[in-house]
Amino acid sequence: MASLGSWREILQSALQSHKHLKHTQHLQLATVRADGRPANRTLVFRGFVDGTDKVQFTTDFRSQKVEEMKHCPFGEICYYFSESWEQFRINGILELISSTESDPLKKALREKAWFDSSPRLRASFGSPYPGHPKTSEIQLPKLDSSQGPLDNFCVLTLDPKEVDYYDAKKGRRIIFKLLAKQSDDDANSVWSQQEVNP
Amino acid sequence: MASLGSWREILQSALQSHKHLKHTQHLQLATVRADGRPANRTLVFRGFVDGTDKVQFTTDFRSQKVEEMKHCPFGEICYYFSESWEQFRINGILELISSTESDPLKKALREKAWFDSSPRLRASFGSPYPGHPKTSEIQLPKLDSSQGPLDNFCVLTLDPKEVDYYDAKKGRRIIFKLLAKQSDDDANSVWSQQEVNP
Repeated sequence: MASLGSWREILQSALQSHKHLKHTQHLQLATVRADGRPANRTLVFRGFVDGTDKVQFTTDFRSQKVEEMKHCPFGEICYYFSESWEQFRINGILELISSTESDPLKKALREKAWFDSSPRLRASFGSPYPGHPKTSEIQLPKLDSSQGPLDNFCVLTLDPKEVDYYDAKKGRRIIFKLLAKQSDDDANSVWSQQEVNP
Repeated sequence: MASLGSWREILQSALQSHKHLKHTQHLQLATVRADGRPANRTLVFRGFVDGTDKVQFTTDFRSQKVEEMKHCPFGEICYYFSESWEQFRINGILELISSTESDPLKKALREKAWFDSSPRLRASFGSPYPGHPKTSEIQLPKLDSSQGPLDNFCVLTLDPKEVDYYDAKKGRRIIFKLLAKQSDDDANSVWSQQEVNP
């Protein structure tokens, strides 16, 4: 068969062909709870961490997934494209970059993600504790646009190890596996690629 | 606060308001693999099993999720509605109804689900083994419209225990928990309902 290129190239092309749709940035992330049961929720795709294959999200430090990651650091993204019927299942390792981060590059990444966020999203990190009973109308803080990240603001990344790509229109399914990675610089990572039965 | 009604009523209303969109039947199901890592994939919502709250799907007996269910029978659905920004996270117990099913009601359910399926979907259950390396062009069997279910055809159900509903436009989140159930007849099941912080 003719190669389709890397999974990053195929994903880029799916994103491009769906960019007219508002909901294209939404995907689902599965994790495992402390009791061993699965969890699943919609997240907004915030692109890739520069120079790497890491998928980037934002999250609240108080959310359940932060607790879940301590027990099981693995996550699986399901990214489905509604018009082309393409699905990417991206399995990998989750990492949290929180207010206590000491690595200068990661600190800078968190800072940048904060200033890339909308005022509405930023204010949400000053909300009452997520998941606790609602006791009153929610008042979000009014933040100055120059104010840095609130403590609850975190960047969440998923470092892909395997990608299961399925094109339901063409009946084509390809499994990509990470074979080797020389460093955090994914320019040098090596992936295998195998077409399988859908 | 004014009650919004049961989660079934809210879901019904979301389905109704999105029925003009083809992709509205697509949701994501998270499970846990034998190695304890999460899995996630898109499935087509096939409604509820008559007279119950069980969410219904079809699946191939040879798919990975059938293997995963043996290790962990729990699943979590993430059902996101792209226009209203409503999300339903439905956590519950998975059950497979396969060709070896002996319960007469479940056998009849599987039969009905088969004849409700499109010819294209039916033929897919005669495909080469899913996930195995592709060795040749895929020839699907030509089935007579009166032919009963192929052996690989299964019905998969998820029996909800908890529903986490979030309306991102209104900033409203409600947790529904199954308190008691008298029988498989869900007409008598009792749910609690608690509004929580988003």
